[in-house]
Amino acid sequence: MLIKDIGEFGLIQRIKKQIKFDSSVIVGPGDDCAVVEFSKKEYLLFTCDMLIEGIDFTRKVDPRLIGRKALAVSLSDIAACGGKPRYALVSLGLPKRTSLKIADGIIKGILDLAEEFKVNIVGGDLSRADKITLDVSVTGVVKKPQLVLRSGAKKGDVIFVSGPLGGSLKGKHLDFTPRVKEAEILVNNFKLNSMIDISDGLVQDLNHILESSSAGAVIYEELIPISKEASGLDDALYSGEDFELLFTASSQEAKKIFYRYPQQFNPIGEIMPEKFGLRLMDRKKKGRKLPLKGFIHF
Amino acid sequence: MLIKDIGEFGLIQRIKKQIKFDSSVIVGPGDDCAVVEFSKKEYLLFTCDMLIEGIDFTRKVDPRLIGRKALAVSLSDIAACGGKPRYALVSLGLPKRTSLKIADGIIKGILDLAEEFKVNIVGGDLSRADKITLDVSVTGVVKKPQLVLRSGAKKGDVIFVSGPLGGSLKGKHLDFTPRVKEAEILVNNFKLNSMIDISDGLVQDLNHILESSSAGAVIYEELIPISKEASGLDDALYSGEDFELLFTASSQEAKKIFYRYPQQFNPIGEIMPEKFGLRLMDRKKKGRKLPLKGFIHF
Repeated sequence: MLIKDIGEFGLIQRIKKQIKFDSSVIVGPGDDCAVVEFSKKEYLLFTCDMLIEGIDFTRKVDPRLIGRKALAVSLSDIAACGGKPRYALVSLGLPKRTSLKIADGIIKGILDLAEEFKVNIVGGDLSRADKITLDVSVTGVVKKPQLVLRSGAKKGDVIFVSGPLGGSLKGKHLDFTPRVKEAEILVNNFKLNSMIDISDGLVQDLNHILESSSAGAVIYEELIPISKEASGLDDALYSGEDFELLFTASSQEAKKIFYRYPQQFNPIGEIMPEKFGLRLMDRKKKGRKLPLKGFIHF
Repeated sequence: MLIKDIGEFGLIQRIKKQIKFDSSVIVGPGDDCAVVEFSKKEYLLFTCDMLIEGIDFTRKVDPRLIGRKALAVSLSDIAACGGKPRYALVSLGLPKRTSLKIADGIIKGILDLAEEFKVNIVGGDLSRADKITLDVSVTGVVKKPQLVLRSGAKKGDVIFVSGPLGGSLKGKHLDFTPRVKEAEILVNNFKLNSMIDISDGLVQDLNHILESSSAGAVIYEELIPISKEASGLDDALYSGEDFELLFTASSQEAKKIFYRYPQQFNPIGEIMPEKFGLRLMDRKKKGRKLPLKGFIHF
């Protein structure tokens, strides 16, 4: 039996079942970040992401963008929990015959983004590898009342996204801005019930919220912001790596968000009872169940 | 110009020069762990290590030992700073056609060691990869007065190792016990001036202490504990991945350590002025400068 027979999510489930924690762990694997006790007022957040040449990028890509993305995806995870990224470790595997120019570029990409978001690159590991391999782990902090998980969506919540979706493979997936500042605005000013960053595609990531929250949802075709680069609606629904925030808030909070930030945060639908499933309402007000597909590793 | 032209340590120096921190960072890259402010009484420690198939292990190795080692090397780093490992993230890259048995074995190896040392595996990342790739990052805590770095060795300090050296490639490098408990005994009972774990070989790692501390050292051939598996003195001096603790303490503290733990911790030499360099005194009391060699990645 091969891992592709049970799939990425099957393997994750298999691991989660075996893991035990002590009482300091508030949230283990399965959300955008792990959450652990830190101080009276704050939790620590942990997340990591691995990027591998040939899977996540090719040699044709500007090395600075490779480095930038390796850190950006983890910053996006910290943002999705309402936190502030603080410290990062970088493991870098390089083929022996890598040019110094490529190594320098990757490092510059990481350091420039770190500086932009005031993240301290405190350490790492250099290793020989056949393919360029990066793994960045980030530690963040979040004020306890501002922690947002995938699991808190409630019936009647309005669903928002922080920007246009689709077509990210044309470039945005490499130079997107992690929505750290947007998340900070949101958790400082509003009470969010659930949040995730869109890395697997809108439908798949919304489904992660729905599964974690035992909820259903309806989204409206006419409300989904489609990026200029997207090939159409399906691209906006299913292509991964948009790295926008997808979040829900009660209708009362939603009104405040929409009133204060009508441009920045787009309402796209509503949380429904679980048995409703996930449906798309088209421009003719005709609903249909959305098939669950999106990026999976194996 | 290729990275192998400037070498692993050259590349590390190049990165270190470009990094900036805020004031919460006590120690950045270059020691066994990064050290940051945590609470009034404790620091947080961060470390990560990447293992790659074909470089660090082959498919012939029991998958449980691969998983075990991936976590163990980072626990050893936390121990080398006098700390207690608490939380770990695991990034795991697997070829699509990996058998479930191998994936399960790797995961079991990680989880079993985590349980043994009461470390919480709080999250991770699964990715497709051409070669099995593991990167484990560990967060630990250390009481502020118990933090031990590479940089604190002082003239007259006695140099100790925590166990026999050499021959680790015959097996120990895969199933060594990270010296977390030994480090705890040491920092709870004695004042250490410097410490490192032996991953690159005794001479190279002692040299890391000497460079960080601007010091020299003499070690005595007759005092170096050589493991049964070692092929001889040179193997004990230069082969990497023993993962024993190498530490120094004032002669007064050293007496206490030796008196209470004569079996466990072996005095092997003394810290000298920097200009003395690093010398080995043979059984005929003849000294010679030790050439600096040991494991480097490129």
